[in-house]
Amino acid sequence: MSNILTIAETAAWLKGRDDFLIITHRRPDGDTLGCAGALAQSLREQKKTAYVLHNPETTPRYAQFVEDFRAPDGYRPGHTITIDTASEDLFPMNGNGYIGAVSLCIDHHPSNTLYAEFSCIDCAAASCGETVYDLLMIMSGSVSSGCAGKLYAALSTDTGCFSFANTTANTLRIAALLIEAGAPHRELNKQLFRTRTIGRIKIEGMIFYGLQFYYGGAVAISAISRKMTEAAGSDEDDLDDIASIPGSVEGVSTGITIRELTSENDCKVSVRTNHTVNAHSICERFGGGGHPMAAGFTLEKTIPEIIEELLQVLGDYICAP
Amino acid sequence: MSNILTIAETAAWLKGRDDFLIITHRRPDGDTLGCAGALAQSLREQKKTAYVLHNPETTPRYAQFVEDFRAPDGYRPGHTITIDTASEDLFPMNGNGYIGAVSLCIDHHPSNTLYAEFSCIDCAAASCGETVYDLLMIMSGSVSSGCAGKLYAALSTDTGCFSFANTTANTLRIAALLIEAGAPHRELNKQLFRTRTIGRIKIEGMIFYGLQFYYGGAVAISAISRKMTEAAGSDEDDLDDIASIPGSVEGVSTGITIRELTSENDCKVSVRTNHTVNAHSICERFGGGGHPMAAGFTLEKTIPEIIEELLQVLGDYICAP
Repeated sequence: MSNILTIAETAAWLKGRDDFLIITHRRPDGDTLGCAGALAQSLREQKKTAYVLHNPETTPRYAQFVEDFRAPDGYRPGHTITIDTASEDLFPMNGNGYIGAVSLCIDHHPSNTLYAEFSCIDCAAASCGETVYDLLMIMSGSVSSGCAGKLYAALSTDTGCFSFANTTANTLRIAALLIEAGAPHRELNKQLFRTRTIGRIKIEGMIFYGLQFYYGGAVAISAISRKMTEAAGSDEDDLDDIASIPGSVEGVSTGITIRELTSENDCKVSVRTNHTVNAHSICERFGGGGHPMAAGFTLEKTIPEIIEELLQVLGDYICAP
Repeated sequence: MSNILTIAETAAWLKGRDDFLIITHRRPDGDTLGCAGALAQSLREQKKTAYVLHNPETTPRYAQFVEDFRAPDGYRPGHTITIDTASEDLFPMNGNGYIGAVSLCIDHHPSNTLYAEFSCIDCAAASCGETVYDLLMIMSGSVSSGCAGKLYAALSTDTGCFSFANTTANTLRIAALLIEAGAPHRELNKQLFRTRTIGRIKIEGMIFYGLQFYYGGAVAISAISRKMTEAAGSDEDDLDDIASIPGSVEGVSTGITIRELTSENDCKVSVRTNHTVNAHSICERFGGGGHPMAAGFTLEKTIPEIIEELLQVLGDYICAP
């Protein structure tokens, strides 16, 4: 059973220890990597030894936040810390050796399995960056400009530059404080939110133009074939959050993305809904599941076959506008 | 010569008067309309009479902020106030009767021509919404939830949901206070930033897929023909800020949008650059101009002719990466 710590208790816990290895989660985002880099940097500023375990899935966009802190091969930490990682099956492949051996977990997911010896879980925070900001302020009374930039990246990426529904007044207030502490928010916003790769532009173009609407516009379906991603030259990074596109169209309650994986007969289906439609229930019919507004399943059928089956089932869930 | 007022002096000015008509600027955005609605509502909450002059170019997206305050035909105000309007040639068509007769101008543009009898100009503000927030707090000590929503819309639309380079720590701090005052930021973010019309989706798809790159990827050109907008069913609202797309591609220093207006031989060209290329100088060569990073011109030639001429000229300005 994990010991639950407040943020102040977590600060005291860190102050009394040394030699830290920080672990980020699988498919790492700006929150886990930004927090890991900021915490490592702050611990070093406080004359402690701190490293971040290299995450092999780190994308170029976020590598800047952790590259100065990469743990050397064979580093034997005194204490391991996970950030933004709700359960041990979210550890990166090279982090499996730390399963059952994590000293401290800092997280904001209500689903956290309390796998660490000590846990600091702040479910009210939109991003772990908010918790780490409070932690660093308690530990050292200030946040350096280097830490501020990394935490700004954490806050802004987890909230879609403050546009997602998880954004709170506290998120914005801490972002203001981070800018005043020297976070280069203009450069970060440009890099993280206002720059598109050619691979992204091309695949978005195909998706936008190919969107199909059903049930009087209440359902939008995007089909992404392997041919499309090849023609667009898009990699996994370019396809980040691509499942949110169909649901972003005016009047759409149910946005569905069907993507070919290894072959024409191997598709991943993502369903995104507003509060009027239960995505989990739809996906359960196909052997999948998830959350009420975001769920998915995989099916060994072709895109046209899946669309046909979906349209038969959707009538039970959708009210055309 | 205009009398320059501080925000506190502006509050006192408003407190001592009554019967206000608020005028928004041509092609009205969320800042001018959100501020106009918030100011009118707050003045009414303070038992004063206040209306907003109907702006015939108001788009459905922003109409919600002013619809409760529409001035009746023939209303004769005691005082007219303009918001976010740098000069009298930006008045809406039906506001021309107020040229030379504006009592108070509240603005944040350094280019303001000081045409009003009294002017409150806050050039440090990213949006007029920030100035109006301070004004309402000084006048009444609080901001109602209705005013807070309108001001949140003003701040967020003028800063691209806090992602543009004009965003400051103060913008984010006031946004936090507005959320705490009851601004429905989740609904507003969804409406204003996370919803796309079908007309927008379709035309973006065509633009993304049709982007052409030159000078090793440093130049991106988007050509928008009348046939494209017709096929996409896109209206003017759908084309809002469309000129920013080519410049948002990774590695592009110069993004150019060529749009057919009334015919194939009547095109508007918009040039958006980063700090390494002077957009104004490029456009000056074609008889146009503007700002260093955003300029334009019109030309009575076809899209292919304009691309050819541009490519001849661009070599003087672009360094391929």
